[in-house]
Amino acid sequence: MSASSPLQWLVANGSIIFESVGILSYALSGLIEAARKKLDLVGMAMVAALTAFGGGTLRDILLDRRPFFWVENLTWIYVILGLCVAAMLFLRSRHLDLTERAMQWPDAIGLGIFSAGGTQIALQSHLPAIVAVVMGVIAAVFGGVARDIVVNEIPKLFIDHQPYAVLAFIGSWIVVIGDGLHWPDFVSLGLSALFIIALRVGAIVFGWRLPVWKV
Amino acid sequence: MSASSPLQWLVANGSIIFESVGILSYALSGLIEAARKKLDLVGMAMVAALTAFGGGTLRDILLDRRPFFWVENLTWIYVILGLCVAAMLFLRSRHLDLTERAMQWPDAIGLGIFSAGGTQIALQSHLPAIVAVVMGVIAAVFGGVARDIVVNEIPKLFIDHQPYAVLAFIGSWIVVIGDGLHWPDFVSLGLSALFIIALRVGAIVFGWRLPVWKV
Amino acid sequence: MSASSPLQWLVANGSIIFESVGILSYALSGLIEAARKKLDLVGMAMVAALTAFGGGTLRDILLDRRPFFWVENLTWIYVILGLCVAAMLFLRSRHLDLTERAMQWPDAIGLGIFSAGGTQIALQSHLPAIVAVVMGVIAAVFGGVARDIVVNEIPKLFIDHQPYAVLAFIGSWIVVIGDGLHWPDFVSLGLSALFIIALRVGAIVFGWRLPVWKV
Repeated sequence: MSASSPLQWLVANGSIIFESVGILSYALSGLIEAARKKLDLVGMAMVAALTAFGGGTLRDILLDRRPFFWVENLTWIYVILGLCVAAMLFLRSRHLDLTERAMQWPDAIGLGIFSAGGTQIALQSHLPAIVAVVMGVIAAVFGGVARDIVVNEIPKLFIDHQPYAVLAFIGSWIVVIGDGLHWPDFVSLGLSALFIIALRVGAIVFGWRLPVWKV
Repeated sequence: MSASSPLQWLVANGSIIFESVGILSYALSGLIEAARKKLDLVGMAMVAALTAFGGGTLRDILLDRRPFFWVENLTWIYVILGLCVAAMLFLRSRHLDLTERAMQWPDAIGLGIFSAGGTQIALQSHLPAIVAVVMGVIAAVFGGVARDIVVNEIPKLFIDHQPYAVLAFIGSWIVVIGDGLHWPDFVSLGLSALFIIALRVGAIVFGWRLPVWKV
Repeated sequence: MSASSPLQWLVANGSIIFESVGILSYALSGLIEAARKKLDLVGMAMVAALTAFGGGTLRDILLDRRPFFWVENLTWIYVILGLCVAAMLFLRSRHLDLTERAMQWPDAIGLGIFSAGGTQIALQSHLPAIVAVVMGVIAAVFGGVARDIVVNEIPKLFIDHQPYAVLAFIGSWIVVIGDGLHWPDFVSLGLSALFIIALRVGAIVFGWRLPVWKV
């Protein structure tokens, strides 16, 4: 082993680590919403799974792709079930606000990963650029939208005036550009995801708002 | 150019014009609902797109057809984005009621176009007549149903006692009959759409109601 | 005809009878919910159809299977329409509570039939065991979840602390085991469905509750 192993390991496993952070943070946001709404154990598991898998699954239905990523990699189903048991044992009311604020950061990673990844998968299906970008946005945001709908709320995404989906929309174009310029996949994916993550972190830190629309 | 050019042009482009009126009026109804609920810009764009594209997309998922019509004709995505910008600049509260009443008319056109068109597409996929008619109804009404669900309302369609889906159901059988009698497509499509539009206009003008069901 | 004809007839037609009981009880639960929410006739028909067909249709979309069971067997569409007419003529407020309690029993049959059947269909599509079981659960519960969402409630399934989906999850593994041991289809299907039905009846009769999760 050379001194550079940790870095090599990070490059080799980076996409898996990032994807895991994204899926876990989406599942956790489902769990927290379920806890707030006092759902039972089954509701908790279903909302967590819907939030984590919903976006990617809808993307694959729209693209007519099979198998779904949670069928190719069964670990995720068990991870969700394990998360629910862990939440049942350890999650308490006083954790909820804290956890929600803490979760904005991994959620930003999920946003970047899923939108860049969704855009690339759609491009590989030979869809036009604008459609690929829309698929990336759908992959990144539909889980959260479905989570809010099943717990009977207007999706936060539609109403909170924070830049979120719009950042996914902007940053996903980097994947399109990289594809046009024949960059290696991991470069365009990585740049796009990092750009979206950076924008989202900026939006949280500096409190950016969408242009207001006064009806 | 002969004196009859305007008419010839209308016949040649009639279906595109009608379809455009339908899609635009559905998108506008999404915009108006989003404005009422004080959604932000992103919510506005998403609800408008869902209302305009939802029915046709669900129809194509059920029929396992690709590409979706908004993928074949990318203009529509840009039209929705443009509509949102226009709404942001020009739409004000005092317009909302006015606009909603004005929109009943183009919406009736959308109902006729989408249900006749959806029925025909399902027949071309060799589905039985009753299923084709159901697909036509789904194509015509699902966008509005999804719009109401995401803004956290019971779908108006399910609860307002106005004849709407039932007119699509009745009128779509004309496409089935025309198909059985080998009429040219544009004849059965046109007759069915016009019949549904006429029924819907009648329902609005004369205040027809569904038979009441007293629980 | 031998003396055993009634038994032979039951064995030959058992799955159709059971399936019919399941679909009818799901459709009725949609009707009752629609009546409670004072939906109109169209809403009633749509919610009944969504509840009865929603789970199987989503299962088939996820598995990329066509035709849907309600396209293969058109009778069901007419049955739903007939049910709505019957409900309109005969259903009154004072029936609602009574009907809902009475319906728990056929609903338990639906739960057993749809989850065992959904699991087997997914196994025939060569999906891994855990995914097949998840598909069984989705087939059995999605109709009821969609019913509650469209009438603007948090799905009862997610919040009432009664064992329901979890019984489908447990009992569907019998289909997986039977498949592994090469039992005849009707044996593993029948055992799994009966086991789930028995558990559900036990849950209703003895008032079993999910382990409580105190946030």
